[in-house]
Amino acid sequence: METREYMARRKAEVDVLLERYLPREEGFQKTIFEAMNYSVRAGGKRLRPILMWETYRLFGGSGREIEPFMAAIEMIHTSSLIHDDLPCMDNDELRRGKPTTWVKYGYDMAVLAGDALLIYAVETASKALSVETPDSARIARAIGLLAEKTGIYGMIGGQVVDVELTGQPIPGEKLDFIYRLKTGALLEASMMIGALLGGADEEQLNIVEQIAAEVGLAFQIQDDILDVTSTAGKLGKPVLSDEKNHKTTYVTLEGVEAARRAVEDHSARALEELSQLPGRNPELEALIRFLIAREN
Amino acid sequence: METREYMARRKAEVDVLLERYLPREEGFQKTIFEAMNYSVRAGGKRLRPILMWETYRLFGGSGREIEPFMAAIEMIHTSSLIHDDLPCMDNDELRRGKPTTWVKYGYDMAVLAGDALLIYAVETASKALSVETPDSARIARAIGLLAEKTGIYGMIGGQVVDVELTGQPIPGEKLDFIYRLKTGALLEASMMIGALLGGADEEQLNIVEQIAAEVGLAFQIQDDILDVTSTAGKLGKPVLSDEKNHKTTYVTLEGVEAARRAVEDHSARALEELSQLPGRNPELEALIRFLIAREN
Repeated sequence: METREYMARRKAEVDVLLERYLPREEGFQKTIFEAMNYSVRAGGKRLRPILMWETYRLFGGSGREIEPFMAAIEMIHTSSLIHDDLPCMDNDELRRGKPTTWVKYGYDMAVLAGDALLIYAVETASKALSVETPDSARIARAIGLLAEKTGIYGMIGGQVVDVELTGQPIPGEKLDFIYRLKTGALLEASMMIGALLGGADEEQLNIVEQIAAEVGLAFQIQDDILDVTSTAGKLGKPVLSDEKNHKTTYVTLEGVEAARRAVEDHSARALEELSQLPGRNPELEALIRFLIAREN
Repeated sequence: METREYMARRKAEVDVLLERYLPREEGFQKTIFEAMNYSVRAGGKRLRPILMWETYRLFGGSGREIEPFMAAIEMIHTSSLIHDDLPCMDNDELRRGKPTTWVKYGYDMAVLAGDALLIYAVETASKALSVETPDSARIARAIGLLAEKTGIYGMIGGQVVDVELTGQPIPGEKLDFIYRLKTGALLEASMMIGALLGGADEEQLNIVEQIAAEVGLAFQIQDDILDVTSTAGKLGKPVLSDEKNHKTTYVTLEGVEAARRAVEDHSARALEELSQLPGRNPELEALIRFLIAREN
């Protein structure tokens, strides 16, 4: 499949880019560098940097100030995974078939590695100021946006509600809140920062935020569907885990059929709104279609 | 004592300022707002924002863009205390006579509250962009500086080495590294951001960094001295805790007399370098003298 090849190529490019920003493993604090790099290198689709890049291109961006932000968004995503896996949170020992950070480096070092990646993401993003003739105002605003979408009104806010309701039935409105924040907010940051640095105006930025929110919901609900319809082989992780963990999902609340319709609705709205923006980026469209129709 | 009154007044002002930036305790993620606010309100000397403010004034700063940074540096300091107190780190149940965040809100919520304050500090700092005619370039650089001094080459880097060596004898060069990073880096950030936003040039910024580093060392060594020479009543916390915890400090390595001389040397250098900067701010000088000669 073409998009799959495209994703693999883009992922490889992001991996190279990430390496440029990861700390060198030397000095007294070597252990934290190793723990950070181990966690970032453990992989994943690199979806957020790719989305950022393609949105940047949609708005005609062609500079290098986007690159530290691409690295930064992946560091923040990784930071959240490290802390999610801790014994006091999900208590997961494996992620993508590898020992989680706390298993490999210890509980204390995993707390610090999560903290380290969170703030190192900001340090990395601020390197955008070192490009030739930087647009400081847009870069500063992009850093603010990154922090806002990561924080208590974004991803972390969603994690808090998710953690508080673990093992309890979750009413629909809170599930929607969790999805919008925990999953959606970083996708919003990715696309909005791409748009902002690419030169989008305020109105366009708002539209991009809406598109990313729709993509986030479709992406998360598709995740719920795959948990009940896929196989462990295809998915690369155990299936039926939500049921086993008594986790409320869109599927347990509304059923698979309603979930499929919701994914279609959200993705149709995302693509409809995308078509209202000036310019076209076929890769971005294909990426959005792929994310939503994906099988793992 | 005059400086003590001055400190109390400034602390009260910082407390009012902090309240303006703390989240309102409403919404689905209310618990995290409460945990953050509880931790920030638990108090402390507000030393870092005060140092930032006085350095800003030394360079003639008179705007409002410094205020969100004053709140931000205190949030970062609080974030580090929350994570330091966790069971997997120092396992402390009390801080300043109150239950620590994990005791009060649970282990998971304390991890998230520390994360939340860390990134909310950046979100808060970026509000400096909302002042009238902001200097975006300086604000963006100040945010980068804040992240850098907080991160793996700053405070967190120091924490990592400190955590790794817990319960082991620490050689002098590593102790120096820990002091410079774990204690010194945030003081450097405080003074450098004050200087930068106040209008300092590169050379002045370097001098300010040196001054803050000297203050940081003197401050930390004074801490070690007080642990063996003060009383719990004066200090507001148990004394002889370093010995009890088999902790290597400047005092256990070099003895109290050498420690006193080191404090004098570092503080003399700080004040000497301060006198080489243009302008004078007697409050800043008094503050530095007070910090170093303090009895709690």
